[in-house]
Amino acid sequence: MSSVAVIGAGAVGCYYGARLARASHDVRFLMRRDLDAVRANGLRIESPDGSFHLARPSVFATSEAIGPVDWVICSLKTTALAAAASLVRPCLADHTRVVALMNGLGVEDELAAAIGADRVFGAMAFVCINRGEPGVVHHLKYGRLTAGHLGDDPAEVELGRALFASADLDVAAAPNLRLARWEKLCWNVPFNGLSVAAGGIGTGAIVQRPELRATAERAMREVIAVANADLRARGSADALDPEEVLSRLFALTDTMGDYRTSMALDYVNGRELEVEAIHGAVCAAARATGVPAPTVETLYALLRAADSRVRGDLATIPPE
Amino acid sequence: MSSVAVIGAGAVGCYYGARLARASHDVRFLMRRDLDAVRANGLRIESPDGSFHLARPSVFATSEAIGPVDWVICSLKTTALAAAASLVRPCLADHTRVVALMNGLGVEDELAAAIGADRVFGAMAFVCINRGEPGVVHHLKYGRLTAGHLGDDPAEVELGRALFASADLDVAAAPNLRLARWEKLCWNVPFNGLSVAAGGIGTGAIVQRPELRATAERAMREVIAVANADLRARGSADALDPEEVLSRLFALTDTMGDYRTSMALDYVNGRELEVEAIHGAVCAAARATGVPAPTVETLYALLRAADSRVRGDLATIPPE
Repeated sequence: MSSVAVIGAGAVGCYYGARLARASHDVRFLMRRDLDAVRANGLRIESPDGSFHLARPSVFATSEAIGPVDWVICSLKTTALAAAASLVRPCLADHTRVVALMNGLGVEDELAAAIGADRVFGAMAFVCINRGEPGVVHHLKYGRLTAGHLGDDPAEVELGRALFASADLDVAAAPNLRLARWEKLCWNVPFNGLSVAAGGIGTGAIVQRPELRATAERAMREVIAVANADLRARGSADALDPEEVLSRLFALTDTMGDYRTSMALDYVNGRELEVEAIHGAVCAAARATGVPAPTVETLYALLRAADSRVRGDLATIPPE
Repeated sequence: MSSVAVIGAGAVGCYYGARLARASHDVRFLMRRDLDAVRANGLRIESPDGSFHLARPSVFATSEAIGPVDWVICSLKTTALAAAASLVRPCLADHTRVVALMNGLGVEDELAAAIGADRVFGAMAFVCINRGEPGVVHHLKYGRLTAGHLGDDPAEVELGRALFASADLDVAAAPNLRLARWEKLCWNVPFNGLSVAAGGIGTGAIVQRPELRATAERAMREVIAVANADLRARGSADALDPEEVLSRLFALTDTMGDYRTSMALDYVNGRELEVEAIHGAVCAAARATGVPAPTVETLYALLRAADSRVRGDLATIPPE
């Protein structure tokens, strides 16, 4: 069994951390907002795969109190990425490995710059999940993890996979982490993006309205084109197959119901949007590779405007 | 002097109608919402070009009460275009000419289908103008009209120009009406579109934020490309020069202040959006000509979603 620090106790961090704790790992959660509620009432996971309750999870208010561990799972919102290194550092021993369980592109690089590349891993969760009241997580559907290593070292990739597999989680090894990141962006860019740009709507409305569905498809094709150019530029022989990705991700989303993306929930609740790590990073890659991505660029501009409205930096016209 | 029916007493119809009335034309306004206020208090135009007040304008509740006139100025919102023919018809004599003073592409064709093409004119107003309290119009800036004839008959074009010129208005003849319509769309598509898609903002925020400005520029270039393909397909030798149009329209908008577009005002006040006549028509032309317009298509999809929210046909996610 391993000691695991979960830095960033949103829905994803709580859910996967709780699954590891239930599998007898020594999981220590860094919590802010929900600290008192979880100390008082524990952590409850409502899930179609089996609801469960951790009566006395190890929760801490600071990383220093958590101390050095075997694994750090960094599941911060990417808007807090600049603070990640200082939050992770107190949990590091020489042997500690750090998994960036976050959305976006380049999040591992931020960690690697601070703590060294060899011990940095990336993981992506294909999961429909929301926070409920403090100390409660609603796992709605799916849950597959993909786990890779920043250096694509096969032995390290296997260690990352094995950690999650030990909790009976559905986890696939990602031999090419960058490719796996891009594949996740193929969903996040259109669906997170349109869910906010269209005013805070669910995925059901996006796939059911022909013009929004067509926009999602066009955005996804642009992401795939940028991804393949980015992978080529990095000397990778791997590539995404546009038709395979489109048919798989739309089929998945068609059965998702009217899922509320994390970005749409952030938006309607007035929280900062993860726009730079997702859309900003794709637009930067598009410009670096010279691949046009006008749909993604348009979404990015509108999401930045939405984020500015949320932050109070962009005034809207008052009604008459 | 001519008799003129103004069908559609929004800010634009009221302003140009009032200018014609002040120049001694027999102008008869069809009014709904503001009828009683204007009957009681007249019509007031606040304008940097000279404010004025029509104490007793001729206002009517029905087109039948207006009766046949020399000119009909149809300044309805394009969302009411389907009702235009029935509102215009009671004002027609054999010699009556009808000017579509509206935004959008193809609005004259709708009128022509109902009343015949020979007598249909189109006019565009490059004007910053808003309605104030009932019976008051705030003319903020600019005001140039462009007037053309659906058949591009030079003698008819001159008659249309002369009508507005007789009221000392700044009016240019449009020898090619379709070209003039496209030129207006070069502004309306990016600026009306982004002012709504970015959440109901003014034009100042669009030109000042680099990513929104770049999106506006990309949308404008797409409109120009579609316009030129559309004009070619119709056998026209005229074309828009992208660099000339961009530099002129951005220079204009840079000096516009934080102008509230009509579409943004409709949006923040919960009124239907003129999305089909503007963005819908451009996307239809893009598909018909095979010219890609991904930025405009994205704006169109998002504006349709915004319009659906306004109409109550698309639910947004409630905050926590």
